[in-house]
Amino acid sequence: MTFTTEQMRFWSPEVRELEPYVPGEQPKIQNLLKLNTNENPYPPSPKVVEAVQAVLANQADALRLYPDPDATALKQAIANQQHVDIAQVFVGNGSDEVLAHIFKAFFIQKQPILYPDITYSFYPVYSQFFGIETKQIPLNDKFEINVADYQQENGGIIITNPNAPTSIALGLAEIEQVLQANPDQVVVIDEAYVDFGAESAVQLVHRYDNLVVCQTTSKSRSLAGLRVGFAIAQPHLIAALEAVKNSFNSYPIDRFAIAAAVASFEDQAYFVQQCQKVIESRELLVNDLTALGFNILPSKANFIFATHPQHDAGQLAQQLREQGIIVRYFNKPRINQFLRITIGTDEQNQRLVETLKTQTL
Amino acid sequence: MTFTTEQMRFWSPEVRELEPYVPGEQPKIQNLLKLNTNENPYPPSPKVVEAVQAVLANQADALRLYPDPDATALKQAIANQQHVDIAQVFVGNGSDEVLAHIFKAFFIQKQPILYPDITYSFYPVYSQFFGIETKQIPLNDKFEINVADYQQENGGIIITNPNAPTSIALGLAEIEQVLQANPDQVVVIDEAYVDFGAESAVQLVHRYDNLVVCQTTSKSRSLAGLRVGFAIAQPHLIAALEAVKNSFNSYPIDRFAIAAAVASFEDQAYFVQQCQKVIESRELLVNDLTALGFNILPSKANFIFATHPQHDAGQLAQQLREQGIIVRYFNKPRINQFLRITIGTDEQNQRLVETLKTQTL
Repeated sequence: MTFTTEQMRFWSPEVRELEPYVPGEQPKIQNLLKLNTNENPYPPSPKVVEAVQAVLANQADALRLYPDPDATALKQAIANQQHVDIAQVFVGNGSDEVLAHIFKAFFIQKQPILYPDITYSFYPVYSQFFGIETKQIPLNDKFEINVADYQQENGGIIITNPNAPTSIALGLAEIEQVLQANPDQVVVIDEAYVDFGAESAVQLVHRYDNLVVCQTTSKSRSLAGLRVGFAIAQPHLIAALEAVKNSFNSYPIDRFAIAAAVASFEDQAYFVQQCQKVIESRELLVNDLTALGFNILPSKANFIFATHPQHDAGQLAQQLREQGIIVRYFNKPRINQFLRITIGTDEQNQRLVETLKTQTL
Repeated sequence: MTFTTEQMRFWSPEVRELEPYVPGEQPKIQNLLKLNTNENPYPPSPKVVEAVQAVLANQADALRLYPDPDATALKQAIANQQHVDIAQVFVGNGSDEVLAHIFKAFFIQKQPILYPDITYSFYPVYSQFFGIETKQIPLNDKFEINVADYQQENGGIIITNPNAPTSIALGLAEIEQVLQANPDQVVVIDEAYVDFGAESAVQLVHRYDNLVVCQTTSKSRSLAGLRVGFAIAQPHLIAALEAVKNSFNSYPIDRFAIAAAVASFEDQAYFVQQCQKVIESRELLVNDLTALGFNILPSKANFIFATHPQHDAGQLAQQLREQGIIVRYFNKPRINQFLRITIGTDEQNQRLVETLKTQTL
């Protein structure tokens, strides 16, 4: 939709320049195999459903009343599961909202913030939204982050680990190098995919007063439909996030979301088991696609980043779509010969492999 | 909690200055009568519970997948109920988030925005958050908005109608005066309480290209626990809100909230009936409190603003609290002799009246 200059006079001038984030599509097609937005192929813990039913059973008082603005029960459940203090936990409406608050709370500084040239494409959007200058640091030729590149003047650093869409993880020793090289800047480790085989920096929070770790329930806890994300950091950093949140929206997490997410964090056995299933399926899929000639970056995520030396990635994505399989294709420099493929169930992955084998390669 | 200068060096400088909003308290006390946050005393439509149960019945695919980022089903249900086009509807995580996006989308201008000196106390907080200059226009001696005061240079106007905490409503003719006097500025009418007897400006949207109307499901639809607010305006204004929202958080409304709110908007009969009950209870309560000597501003909201010539409002609030009844008291200039009292059920209101009569007056 385009509007006239006259109509646009009502917009705040800076809003006229915004280039919003474009999420992966959510098409409504029968028999679709949706491997494009890194959702979990398995349902959440059965305890989640029970928790929402309990809210409903008591619905009169539950729904007509505001939720706890601090979501204390949820923060406590996260603190218990992550082995941190409740004062080290911040929660928000999905990790996207948590990240937005992080950019406002820490990154409006004189120097530009640093992040990789290939990473979560919401970072430049937040930066523009808050008027934050950025410097994008190129990944090396293997699509890896070179932590030595993050030893330069900056106003803050954000690194996705494992990185997306590359799927490659840094080890904690490398994260510590970044933290130690930047003692006066906040270093954010965005761990949306950490539960599928990478090491979490949460265990470093007590030792680094400049570290913020961000996670989500959308992937490893199968709760993308619920919108709950969180950050772990020392209390002086959490307080900045609370000041921002309470200047924007007092009650971002509704009663269903609080109850459901608490139940998820309390069911550790289910969580560990489901993550393990995805990891095992990933290894099988990597083997099968490698056998078909794909080169696949070493993944610690619930997706893989794959390229085929003889086949154009954009064409492959289009051919798969014609067979009812959607993967994510980014038509951007350096990565326009790659497909980002979410790990499905073994049965779903087999459908992908068979379709590639018989229809496209 | 206070932090050292060294710890505060990590905060964005502007965030160190924020003075966040303080929501009404949500205490956990047995037998508490909570008349402090303008919640509805009645549960939401039974259809709401059925809708959430339907999401649960199909939980595997419902919760592991992201919700529709555009919440199209919800926008359509609102459009139907409000008799507008879906392109005239914006939805957000409570009207607080909708208002935050409104301030960003329209109010970052060269001239200060205008709003009453006594109104929703989140407006100065949003203004500080986005660096917006404000000019507060005093209510008259009867606590009324004088629309002639809004004919001066400005970067936008926001008026709560009925106003809070005063409860007094403007008529549509007065709203139109403001709209006509400010053809180049966005005029926002925040109608959180409109369904309890005031006239909605939604019917003016097709005639004014500078009008944004904001409403919530928290009060009249008994869904404070759910976090769904919305705005109605012409498409060139909705588009600015979408640009802001999609630069901040793609999926602010979860699957339960979408399903539950749709069900609420589809049950018009229940909605009309429950609003009428609150209005009737309000008139009874006004009579009873007037008989006890209170002066009460003329209310079109689900709360009243009451002062007693012989009793200090702060003391009354404290005495009521000791009896397990919480009302809202603002220790602020001009209104520090008033109590803001949410309308409860007739039984709850009677408990308030009896407690005042026997314990405090």
